[in-house]
Amino acid sequence: MSEHVLKNSEALYDRARRVIPGGLYGHQARGLLTRGSHPVFLESASGCRLKDVDGNEYIDFLCAYGPMVVGYGNESVERAAALQREACDTMNVPAPAMVELAEKLVGLTPGADWVLFAKNGSDVTTWSLAVARAATGRDNVAVVAGTYHGVHGWCNQLEKGFPGSERSTVVNFDWNDLDSLDRCLAVEGGLAAVMVTPFRHEAFSDSQLPADGFLEGVRQRCSKHGAVMIVDDVRAGFRLHLGGSSQLWGVTPDLLLYSKALANGYPLSAMLGVDSLRSAAREVFYTGTFGTQAVPLAAAVATLDFLEDRDGPSVMREQGESLCSGLREQAQAAGFGVTISGPAAIPFMTFTDDSEFALSRRFAGLCADGGVFIHPLHNWFLSTAHSAEDIEQALSITTDAFSRLAQEREG
Amino acid sequence: MSEHVLKNSEALYDRARRVIPGGLYGHQARGLLTRGSHPVFLESASGCRLKDVDGNEYIDFLCAYGPMVVGYGNESVERAAALQREACDTMNVPAPAMVELAEKLVGLTPGADWVLFAKNGSDVTTWSLAVARAATGRDNVAVVAGTYHGVHGWCNQLEKGFPGSERSTVVNFDWNDLDSLDRCLAVEGGLAAVMVTPFRHEAFSDSQLPADGFLEGVRQRCSKHGAVMIVDDVRAGFRLHLGGSSQLWGVTPDLLLYSKALANGYPLSAMLGVDSLRSAAREVFYTGTFGTQAVPLAAAVATLDFLEDRDGPSVMREQGESLCSGLREQAQAAGFGVTISGPAAIPFMTFTDDSEFALSRRFAGLCADGGVFIHPLHNWFLSTAHSAEDIEQALSITTDAFSRLAQEREG
Repeated sequence: MSEHVLKNSEALYDRARRVIPGGLYGHQARGLLTRGSHPVFLESASGCRLKDVDGNEYIDFLCAYGPMVVGYGNESVERAAALQREACDTMNVPAPAMVELAEKLVGLTPGADWVLFAKNGSDVTTWSLAVARAATGRDNVAVVAGTYHGVHGWCNQLEKGFPGSERSTVVNFDWNDLDSLDRCLAVEGGLAAVMVTPFRHEAFSDSQLPADGFLEGVRQRCSKHGAVMIVDDVRAGFRLHLGGSSQLWGVTPDLLLYSKALANGYPLSAMLGVDSLRSAAREVFYTGTFGTQAVPLAAAVATLDFLEDRDGPSVMREQGESLCSGLREQAQAAGFGVTISGPAAIPFMTFTDDSEFALSRRFAGLCADGGVFIHPLHNWFLSTAHSAEDIEQALSITTDAFSRLAQEREG
Repeated sequence: MSEHVLKNSEALYDRARRVIPGGLYGHQARGLLTRGSHPVFLESASGCRLKDVDGNEYIDFLCAYGPMVVGYGNESVERAAALQREACDTMNVPAPAMVELAEKLVGLTPGADWVLFAKNGSDVTTWSLAVARAATGRDNVAVVAGTYHGVHGWCNQLEKGFPGSERSTVVNFDWNDLDSLDRCLAVEGGLAAVMVTPFRHEAFSDSQLPADGFLEGVRQRCSKHGAVMIVDDVRAGFRLHLGGSSQLWGVTPDLLLYSKALANGYPLSAMLGVDSLRSAAREVFYTGTFGTQAVPLAAAVATLDFLEDRDGPSVMREQGESLCSGLREQAQAAGFGVTISGPAAIPFMTFTDDSEFALSRRFAGLCADGGVFIHPLHNWFLSTAHSAEDIEQALSITTDAFSRLAQEREG
């Protein structure tokens, strides 16, 4: 397996660095993927396959960091999007697609009575706190320490550029630790909201499922204290359960937040809420220029229909389990200790005794060289476009990557 | 002129209210347009024409609140978008379109050395403050009192749901009043940034152009005090000048913010900056799920090409001047005092002695009944799709609306 050529990627990156600070930015910033192995720019995408600007092909397990839940260029989503686009997209007031999607989501989601739409995950995490504050008249909100909820001042993990005053109403508790939440609930003035992800899926960390009773304990405490329970399902939504990921653990939040996979790559996010928060939701002014954009709304209806028709979460779990069990066997055979964490549809793998992620980076690089796109530091995503054959082909590439990694360890 | 039927709109609105708080929200909220005359939902759009869900047609002067700068469904923009979409859209890393658009914008824009992309106007107003704070090590920022810069906590005009602590680093000065800016600059710790719009275009107000020397005075003071000058060109961008609207007044900011018209309705925003802020821009972590989306980037290149080829700002100014002078004559003939304010390509009309906007609402309603879509409370927008014939036809409708309004006054 020789390292593949990334000549055009590098040439484009040279151009990019002149006109874009860092050439790439945010979670795409160079240095997060494996330099020299992962492409810097991609040229085309179809199903679960990517082609980079040098013609290298990859079986993709990142799904654009989540959005591509039914595959790149999914025919039935693109048909619905094209039909909507022919009529209209961004306008003065919405098209009927907004009502259709709202009805569809309310129908799919236990406990949800209404929906509001935005573009980014950060839009809805911030908006949901405003609704909770408007409803409760309280300012403080609790989140799990170190959890990614977006890039606004109150939650930006790097903090640089955001004054401390923007975080002054945010208190932290620990994942799977209800005692620490109890200490937050005792804060002066009480809590407007408690925001959790359905499972813990931080970059640079093994994923952690909720312990028995944890999400239920959050639910009970919120109800008791009159705080709004918010589930940030931006990353996990629609891969585990079509009614909101926390349903897997039998828990229904007051506000449920979606984005990434909602419209299979079209920019859209949504906040779903219970009836008792409807008037607070009306009182908060939140909007954006492209709020009427109809194509993402129509694409979302088609994405949800597709996932329902095929029981998408089961398909992704099954293919994810094949991938994960294959990787476990291969790691063992090659003599590597690995931890594969998270639900099978949103898995992540780390190496034992690899705190600087050197093995992870090298392994992900070897996979990219061979034609499999995984992330060394961030969880992966399955889609319904991953067939048993795709998984099998991917595993034949990862087994070579493990062998090469073992050789390098010996050498 | 009889009031037109909005039966399907009303039926959809009934459905919407069940599943969306308020049925519509944000700047689309019902009550901002004229009830019974403006449609609640639109079905299709082409050029400068809209059709609502009841089949009523409108010549549109709102342009989706700005985005549609070269017309709904512009052929050359849609051709570029389709070509990009066939290859790819949202992916793990960007497509080459990101570099192409960044190069195009840097080439078009005096003083700009780099570009970063996001989705909403609020994204870039917030992000720009973070860059300014990272660059200066200062927290406080100054904005013109009452100016709309988006919906995040630091600038949300309705405040409900956003704790005061999020606005604690924002100080206010007055439009066209450099003395008031001097008082802000004397604030303890100094200012990280001064953010202005190129002209004042608040809803519920006549627009105000910058007084002689105002923008230049802001520029000089920022340079002297080491504060970052930010021009929020989200609303006006690409209708007045293709190098940034403040170029009309000979002023080059340190950071220039675009969104609305950048990609003719595709969701995109951009922050352009000077070289001295490049490293600060790299230090701030800001991103969003759909940051790689290639179709809006390709659409933006085509939009800018189209505007350049046809000298879009001149076309829009000319058609805007025809519209405005026609309205002025009609108002005078009908015996109404009106103020038409703002640049001709982004005009707004208010009635004298109409502080509650009753005449504005009724006039906009009569225009909608006749087939012209204007906003009673918010500035309007021209596009290159408005031909001399469209303006002529629109004026034949507005003259009837003025006559009817005069009759109602007499009655």
